[in-house]
Amino acid sequence: MELRFLGTGAGIPSKERNVSAMALELLQERGSVWLFDCGEATQHQILHTSIRPRKLEKIFITHLHGDHIYGLPGILSSRSFQDGITPLTVYGPEGIEEYVRTSLQISGTQLTYPLYFQTVAEGIVFEDEQFTIQCLELDHKVPSYGYRITEKDLPGQLLVDKLKDLGINPGPIYQQIKENEQTFLPDGKIIERKDFIGQNKQGRVISIIGDTRYFKELIPFVNGSDLLVHEATFQAADHRLAHTYFHSTTEQAANLAASANVKSLVLTHISSRYQGKALQQLIQEATTIFSNTTIANDFDSFQITNSEAN
Amino acid sequence: MELRFLGTGAGIPSKERNVSAMALELLQERGSVWLFDCGEATQHQILHTSIRPRKLEKIFITHLHGDHIYGLPGILSSRSFQDGITPLTVYGPEGIEEYVRTSLQISGTQLTYPLYFQTVAEGIVFEDEQFTIQCLELDHKVPSYGYRITEKDLPGQLLVDKLKDLGINPGPIYQQIKENEQTFLPDGKIIERKDFIGQNKQGRVISIIGDTRYFKELIPFVNGSDLLVHEATFQAADHRLAHTYFHSTTEQAANLAASANVKSLVLTHISSRYQGKALQQLIQEATTIFSNTTIANDFDSFQITNSEAN
Repeated sequence: MELRFLGTGAGIPSKERNVSAMALELLQERGSVWLFDCGEATQHQILHTSIRPRKLEKIFITHLHGDHIYGLPGILSSRSFQDGITPLTVYGPEGIEEYVRTSLQISGTQLTYPLYFQTVAEGIVFEDEQFTIQCLELDHKVPSYGYRITEKDLPGQLLVDKLKDLGINPGPIYQQIKENEQTFLPDGKIIERKDFIGQNKQGRVISIIGDTRYFKELIPFVNGSDLLVHEATFQAADHRLAHTYFHSTTEQAANLAASANVKSLVLTHISSRYQGKALQQLIQEATTIFSNTTIANDFDSFQITNSEAN
Repeated sequence: MELRFLGTGAGIPSKERNVSAMALELLQERGSVWLFDCGEATQHQILHTSIRPRKLEKIFITHLHGDHIYGLPGILSSRSFQDGITPLTVYGPEGIEEYVRTSLQISGTQLTYPLYFQTVAEGIVFEDEQFTIQCLELDHKVPSYGYRITEKDLPGQLLVDKLKDLGINPGPIYQQIKENEQTFLPDGKIIERKDFIGQNKQGRVISIIGDTRYFKELIPFVNGSDLLVHEATFQAADHRLAHTYFHSTTEQAANLAASANVKSLVLTHISSRYQGKALQQLIQEATTIFSNTTIANDFDSFQITNSEAN
């Protein structure tokens, strides 16, 4: 599980930062990739990565501002030219379906795969045997949602060395032991699975907080995240500007991370007004409050690893 | 007058060629820039040029396929962040206004300048004291238009040396001579303007032929162009594919240039299937028929110079 930033700027593209998009690569977990936001030229950024558009399974949109959605019609169209045949679902606020369908229809685009839409609201917006995804409505100029992606706990690994010590060597028997509470061996021995399976791996949690002002309900929503991605459009001193434009500061994002017991914080949606020293200032402001903070650059990638559950 | 290619690919972007767009830079002529087509990431390409989005005055769309229009909402929005205050008009087939207005409305975008739309049809679509722009309906899968941009003839220069020979030295009198058919000098001499003005400069003609099959009415439409920009999606041998997909070959474009007495031909809308040697093959096919042919690359720029009229 790897989160790759495809655009880390705010509002308009610059040479340094494209507009918002990030890819959650779940190739090992489910052979697919999820996008979060899709600003213009997201498909162009993807050309410089190993991501294959045909692997896209879900696209989650935080809100409908242009710098978060104008890349959708293009990537959806191009996926048809790139052997995309599996279904794809776009999640987002009311209006996302009309925007995409109008764009595809007027441009005479016929897709080679089924395209579905799901309007999001607070609560669980997706759940299967691997993941639960919850939404929280944020405080922005237009309806904007944060996404909390919770991986379900994974069963521990078979304790191979312990089995070998008993003279049980690798073979189909290992699968049997994994799948059954008890396994009867030919010599009459009974193997209890619980004795030969390591600790559960705790599912990972990633919270992605799009454009928003700070508000206190964010704390329980992102609590305990392995990775918190948060916008930081403004420096701490510009908190009045942040409030006026419905955005957050570095300081607010770092305070949230510190209050919510998250493991690491990545800041994105960085205004192009901050370059060089000013950018250093942003990171200093944040790390003073929450040391495990990074400011994402386009193409930066973050591995999220499992920890062992109790 | 300079034509700069911003995207020279076909269908989907590649690392080498972006999707369709070109900028006609008319800074000397009218302090503005006109775009022809606006595929996704046209605003990103512009970041690597000296073009200022606030200078955009008109955007002409050949047809509504996504690789020609998906960059419009983004560039129109960004222009508001880039001091764009002067009006901008988008010309294109029926549907272009609905596409743009839906995109801007759903994304909550408020522009800082007046935006107008004009649906094009065959005939003159724009005329002022400097330029006439005519449209021809092409033969494509969806309504597609070619644009012929005709600059009106410019008056010749004042023959300064000839005036000096008569003892008439630079000063406000020069402006009088330029602006009046006859000028009476203090010494009683009469200056006839026609004797002291050089030949008219013939207005330049650029024809931009978007996605189309070849058809013979193209010949009179592009006749005598200083610069003909034509799509060449396929190599000569693939003329059946070109017909099936409503496109043209190198050979067809070059034959058109040769038949229509144009001065130079630039090919664009090049499929990414042609790389390296295959690309060389395309240019050979064209130059064999019409020697003054170039295949455009992204960011290539072509100066169009005046010739003297009779």
